[in-house]
Amino acid sequence: MTIKEKFGNRVKELRQTHNLSQEKLALQIDMDRTYLASIESGKRNVSLENISKIANGFSISLEELFKDM
Amino acid sequence: MTIKEKFGNRVKELRQTHNLSQEKLALQIDMDRTYLASIESGKRNVSLENISKIANGFSISLEELFKDM
Repeated sequence: MTIKEKFGNRVKELRQTHNLSQEKLALQIDMDRTYLASIESGKRNVSLENISKIANGFSISLEELFKDM
Repeated sequence: MTIKEKFGNRVKELRQTHNLSQEKLALQIDMDRTYLASIESGKRNVSLENISKIANGFSISLEELFKDM
Protein backbone atom coordinates (compact mmCIF):
# COMPACT_ATOMS: atom_id res chain seq x y z
CA MET A 1 0.00 0.00 0.00
CA THR A 2 1.35 3.44 -0.88
CA ILE A 3 1.68 6.25 1.63
CA LYS A 4 -1.13 8.05 -0.23
CA GLU A 5 -3.41 5.05 0.23
CA LYS A 6 -2.49 4.66 3.89
CA PHE A 7 -3.20 8.32 4.49
CA GLY A 8 -6.52 8.11 2.63
CA ASN A 9 -7.60 5.15 4.74
CA ARG A 10 -6.67 6.98 7.92
CA VAL A 11 -8.68 10.07 6.94
CA LYS A 12 -11.69 7.94 6.07
CA GLU A 13 -11.42 6.01 9.33
CA LEU A 14 -11.21 9.21 11.39
CA ARG A 15 -14.06 10.81 9.46
CA GLN A 16 -16.29 7.82 10.15
CA THR A 17 -15.26 7.74 13.82
CA HIS A 18 -16.29 11.39 14.01
CA ASN A 19 -19.60 10.60 12.31
CA LEU A 20 -18.96 13.08 9.55
CA SER A 21 -20.01 12.78 5.92
CA GLN A 22 -17.50 13.77 3.24
CA GLU A 23 -19.76 16.76 2.51
CA LYS A 24 -19.80 17.93 6.11
CA LEU A 25 -16.06 17.53 6.69
CA ALA A 26 -15.22 19.17 3.36
CA LEU A 27 -17.47 22.13 4.14
CA GLN A 28 -16.00 22.44 7.62
CA ILE A 29 -12.42 22.64 6.39
CA ASP A 30 -13.20 24.58 3.22
CA MET A 31 -12.06 21.83 0.86
CA ASP A 32 -13.76 20.63 -2.31
CA ARG A 33 -15.77 17.48 -1.61
CA THR A 34 -14.44 15.69 -4.69
CA TYR A 35 -10.87 16.55 -3.66
CA LEU A 36 -11.48 15.10 -0.20
CA ALA A 37 -12.94 11.98 -1.84
CA SER A 38 -9.82 11.55 -3.99
CA ILE A 39 -7.62 11.93 -0.89
CA GLU A 40 -9.58 9.14 0.81
CA SER A 41 -9.17 7.01 -2.30
CA GLY A 42 -5.39 7.33 -1.95
CA LYS A 43 -5.01 9.25 -5.19
CA ARG A 44 -3.55 12.50 -3.85
CA ASN A 45 -0.09 13.53 -2.78
CA VAL A 46 -1.61 15.86 -0.17
CA SER A 47 0.32 18.95 0.89
CA LEU A 48 1.28 19.89 4.43
CA GLU A 49 -1.28 22.72 4.53
CA ASN A 50 -4.10 20.43 3.47
CA ILE A 51 -2.95 17.75 5.91
CA SER A 52 -3.07 20.41 8.61
CA LYS A 53 -6.58 21.48 7.53
CA ILE A 54 -7.77 17.89 7.86
CA ALA A 55 -6.26 17.54 11.35
CA ASN A 56 -8.00 20.78 12.36
CA GLY A 57 -11.27 19.42 10.99
CA PHE A 58 -11.00 16.54 13.45
CA SER A 59 -9.62 18.81 16.20
CA ILE A 60 -6.58 16.57 16.56
CA SER A 61 -2.83 17.13 16.29
CA LEU A 62 -0.81 16.10 13.27
CA GLU A 63 0.85 13.54 15.53
CA GLU A 64 -2.56 12.03 16.25
CA LEU A 65 -3.55 12.16 12.57
CA PHE A 66 -0.55 9.99 11.68
CA LYS A 67 -0.92 7.70 14.67
CA ASP A 68 -0.33 4.01 13.90
CA MET A 69 -0.33 4.78 10.21
CA MET B 1 4.33 30.60 13.01
CA THR B 2 2.92 28.84 9.95
CA ILE B 3 2.63 25.09 9.67
CA LYS B 4 5.36 25.22 7.01
CA GLU B 5 7.70 26.99 9.43
CA LYS B 6 6.87 24.61 12.27
CA PHE B 7 7.57 21.65 10.01
CA GLY B 8 10.84 23.20 8.80
CA ASN B 9 12.02 23.71 12.36
CA ARG B 10 11.14 20.14 13.25
CA VAL B 11 13.08 18.73 10.31
CA LYS B 12 16.11 20.88 11.15
CA GLU B 13 15.95 19.84 14.80
CA LEU B 14 15.75 16.14 13.93
CA ARG B 15 18.52 16.46 11.37
CA GLN B 16 20.82 18.05 13.93
CA THR B 17 19.88 15.45 16.55
CA HIS B 18 20.86 12.80 14.03
CA ASN B 19 24.14 14.62 13.34
CA LEU B 20 23.39 14.88 9.65
CA SER B 21 24.35 17.74 7.35
CA GLN B 22 21.76 18.95 4.83
CA GLU B 23 23.96 17.45 2.12
CA LYS B 24 24.08 14.04 3.76
CA LEU B 25 20.37 13.84 4.54
CA ALA B 26 19.42 15.11 1.08
CA LEU B 27 21.64 12.54 -0.58
CA GLN B 28 20.28 9.78 1.64
CA ILE B 29 16.65 10.48 0.74
CA ASP B 30 17.33 11.46 -2.87
CA MET B 31 16.16 15.05 -2.50
CA ASP B 32 17.80 18.18 -3.87
CA ARG B 33 19.86 19.89 -1.13
CA THR B 34 18.47 23.33 -1.94
CA TYR B 35 14.93 21.95 -1.76
CA LEU B 36 15.62 20.46 1.66
CA ALA B 37 17.08 23.82 2.75
CA SER B 38 13.92 25.63 1.66
CA ILE B 39 11.80 23.10 3.57
CA GLU B 40 13.83 23.82 6.71
CA SER B 41 13.36 27.54 6.12
CA GLY B 42 9.60 27.01 6.21
CA LYS B 43 9.12 28.02 2.60
CA ARG B 44 7.65 24.80 1.24
CA ASN B 45 4.21 23.27 1.31
CA VAL B 46 5.76 19.80 1.39
CA SER B 47 3.83 16.87 -0.04
CA LEU B 48 2.96 13.66 1.76
CA GLU B 49 5.48 11.66 -0.31
CA ASN B 50 8.30 14.03 0.55
CA ILE B 51 7.24 14.11 4.20
CA SER B 52 7.41 10.32 4.14
CA LYS B 53 10.86 10.40 2.52
CA ILE B 54 12.11 12.66 5.31
CA ALA B 55 10.70 10.36 8.01
CA ASN B 56 12.43 7.42 6.31
CA GLY B 57 15.67 9.39 6.28
CA PHE B 58 15.52 9.58 10.05
CA SER B 59 14.18 6.01 10.36
CA ILE B 60 11.17 7.25 12.29
CA SER B 61 7.40 7.03 11.81
CA LEU B 62 5.31 9.91 10.52
CA GLU B 63 3.74 10.03 13.96
CA GLU B 64 7.19 10.59 15.48
CA LEU B 65 8.08 13.16 12.83
CA PHE B 66 5.09 15.27 13.85
CA LYS B 67 5.58 14.71 17.57
CA ASP B 68 5.02 17.81 19.71
CA MET B 69 4.92 19.93 16.60
